Amino acid sequence: MTALIAEQSEPAALAVVVDGLRERFGERVSTSGAVREQHANTLTWIASEPPDAVVFVENTGDVVEAVKICAENKVPIIPFGAGTSLEGHLNAPYGGVSLDFSRMNRILDVHREDLDCVVEAGVTRKQLNEHLRDTGLFFPVDPGADATLGGMAATRASGTNAVRYGTMRDAVLNLTAVMADGSVVKTAQRARKSSAGYDLTHLLVGSEGTLGVITELTLRLHGVPEAILSAVCPFDTIDGACDAVITAIQMGLGLARCELLDEVQIEACNVHSDLGLKKTPTLFLEFHGTATSTREEVETFSEIASETGGGAFQWAERAEDRNRLWEARHEAYWAARTYRPGADAIATDVCVPISRLAECVRETKKDIDAFKLVAPIVGHIGDGNFHVIPLIDMDSANEVEAAATFLDRLVERALAMEGTCTGEHGVGSGKMKYMQAEHSSGIEVMRAIKRTLDPHNIFNPGKVVELT
Amino acid sequence: MTALIAEQSEPAALAVVVDGLRERFGERVSTSGAVREQHANTLTWIASEPPDAVVFVENTGDVVEAVKICAENKVPIIPFGAGTSLEGHLNAPYGGVSLDFSRMNRILDVHREDLDCVVEAGVTRKQLNEHLRDTGLFFPVDPGADATLGGMAATRASGTNAVRYGTMRDAVLNLTAVMADGSVVKTAQRARKSSAGYDLTHLLVGSEGTLGVITELTLRLHGVPEAILSAVCPFDTIDGACDAVITAIQMGLGLARCELLDEVQIEACNVHSDLGLKKTPTLFLEFHGTATSTREEVETFSEIASETGGGAFQWAERAEDRNRLWEARHEAYWAARTYRPGADAIATDVCVPISRLAECVRETKKDIDAFKLVAPIVGHIGDGNFHVIPLIDMDSANEVEAAATFLDRLVERALAMEGTCTGEHGVGSGKMKYMQAEHSSGIEVMRAIKRTLDPHNIFNPGKVVELT
Repeated sequence: MTALIAEQSEPAALAVVVDGLRERFGERVSTSGAVREQHANTLTWIASEPPDAVVFVENTGDVVEAVKICAENKVPIIPFGAGTSLEGHLNAPYGGVSLDFSRMNRILDVHREDLDCVVEAGVTRKQLNEHLRDTGLFFPVDPGADATLGGMAATRASGTNAVRYGTMRDAVLNLTAVMADGSVVKTAQRARKSSAGYDLTHLLVGSEGTLGVITELTLRLHGVPEAILSAVCPFDTIDGACDAVITAIQMGLGLARCELLDEVQIEACNVHSDLGLKKTPTLFLEFHGTATSTREEVETFSEIASETGGGAFQWAERAEDRNRLWEARHEAYWAARTYRPGADAIATDVCVPISRLAECVRETKKDIDAFKLVAPIVGHIGDGNFHVIPLIDMDSANEVEAAATFLDRLVERALAMEGTCTGEHGVGSGKMKYMQAEHSSGIEVMRAIKRTLDPHNIFNPGKVVELT
Repeated sequence: MTALIAEQSEPAALAVVVDGLRERFGERVSTSGAVREQHANTLTWIASEPPDAVVFVENTGDVVEAVKICAENKVPIIPFGAGTSLEGHLNAPYGGVSLDFSRMNRILDVHREDLDCVVEAGVTRKQLNEHLRDTGLFFPVDPGADATLGGMAATRASGTNAVRYGTMRDAVLNLTAVMADGSVVKTAQRARKSSAGYDLTHLLVGSEGTLGVITELTLRLHGVPEAILSAVCPFDTIDGACDAVITAIQMGLGLARCELLDEVQIEACNVHSDLGLKKTPTLFLEFHGTATSTREEVETFSEIASETGGGAFQWAERAEDRNRLWEARHEAYWAARTYRPGADAIATDVCVPISRLAECVRETKKDIDAFKLVAPIVGHIGDGNFHVIPLIDMDSANEVEAAATFLDRLVERALAMEGTCTGEHGVGSGKMKYMQAEHSSGIEVMRAIKRTLDPHNIFNPGKVVELT
């Protein structure tokens, strides 16, 4: 763990805060061990560091009051959505109070003509799409887990649809956040575009709770396409799969999803989801459009793929087959975990320009072999973003050390290819050590912004940017 | 003009700066009246306030040195692209040095596989597209003028293609900027997406030279579509035109451009560009896709339009007809100016959610009548963004006063409809007075960022955010 300037909350200050919170929120404050443990880190190999207390907030006013109580006593605040982040975002290395958003799950408005909706930060992506089911609209961003929309905005999440519909960077029209001084900021109006001043929306998207606590969001929606066609296409090589996708994107094909699973991940998914696919690099694809346009695009893609070693397509035309396919894709992480029983999964991600993707995956697979790791690879190939999931016996010091070195080399490789240390998981505490190498002097700008907006470092301290 | 805390540059400090710049840049420094005048405000009714000197920079290193010389002496710096901004962005109300980017016009790299390019800030949008002509790629953002890409990023510009391809907010993958302390920051890697830290790219896009001076940009490109179909469609009413577009967008039609011209603007364009169109609210449309998909979409749109009072389409299938059509659209500003000879044109823009657009335009036209103004309207209807161009006799105090009141009411109306005081022109000095009403407590966050990144207020002072 990197050294940080924040200090453990003073026991006295903490007691004052818990008393203050109890007075205001009554039974909505918990200091029970089980509840605190649930609100720390869960899905990663990073050790769990529970908060001192948890408050179940119900509206923006609650958040304002909780922030004010904590700020007065310089006690940290850690916003908690669904607990599915992967880089230790929810840990409380300096203690403090976790704000649980599960009760802020109201969908406040759906503007069908404007293709947008207003939600509280605790609404999950599946809940929103369920709500939209009869409107002809949908919300596309889909990280594997059923994360909250506030958490997804805070970590600048994306998923399988990003190649067509963008990431949370593109999906958030505006948001409401509580700042460290207790003020409530709405970052923009609901208009689709604006040139009116600094872009506070994007400053908060991806800030991981370190600059402000997101309480509401206005999100872009999209019309459900008339026709959806999904397919699986095996390739001889990863290069062949990448080349096919590059050509398809250049031609402007309406690829809504294009996911690459390497032969190890295919094997894991075969076991976990009974897919029965050939053990070879494989694309999971989806085309959105009209009946005519999707058919046309599928034909074009088949021709492209056949020239780069793509094999016979398996089509999933019925909605149930399609759902089964994408369910299997979204279960890739759990498939990987069960692939080596007893092992811990270290889910990590990097992102490079797509022209470097095949090379980056190839070099990474060489490293997996060299370090004798078991590590499936699955990627949002259209974005140049891929996940590696080393499956590690945490009782083996050798394996743990090998994994750590492997991860450092993975990031180093991605940066050397003009890529980033994380395409969609975020920094948390796990990737702070790479930020200097990635951002160089940009880090000083980030530090200046953090210091001016959160002078006492009470917002999720120990995450994103190391303060010096 | 709003009160500001910056003060006129000290004559002594200014002399030291000009000497320092001359020593470093020789004949690339100009203090001639004509050159200074060219670098102040040109296209608006806001009075011209020329800088004290102009430096023709040739690379990022030049900008660093110029910024350092100015910073040491607390003399303002105003970046200058093509001089086409509309809200007094380029004025030097406190004196200072204009940095002219016309010599930083190299296209440094085109990555065809990654659909991106790297350019210096002084490259113009037309120059870039000319350069891309044989690559099968194009850069879509097209404000009317042939602005520089650095200037377009700084003002978060957009244009007719934004409904399909987004604005400069979406087009900039990363940028290089010189900060007030002389440090050079590259805001992100070249990967398509990243969750690695605060979004400095979007903080600088739209900051209008007040937080950093943009010197290079990596921009997203798009494949030239296989088929392009353009058309003109007259409507009985503005409501009908808006309703047709709302339905088309909900259905996911591949509208690449959809522009609304009111009957006054049509008349102006008829005169200026010899279009011979009927004097009625009219849509200029463009569909991008394959031969099949565009035909299909055009048919669908025709059906939609016929249900909301749309008349006979006039198709421009040949490239030359298409170019003539869009040339006329891009000339709308000049057409408006010649529509009332001798008058000054006050080009302004607001943006509202599209569901409110028809109402907002209707109310605005009522106001135009009530104030007895001549004011064509032309809008990027798919984004809810429209321009009004009051044509004012600046010698008539009555007209000037009426125009000022009209503009205030226009912004007030847009804000009341959850819109913004500017969709794509930016704030400059002209719209600073609306920022408090639009952003409320967000203004304090903007001020805090400005103060921490530019503590001596040397970067384009008197623009965007009023400091108190």
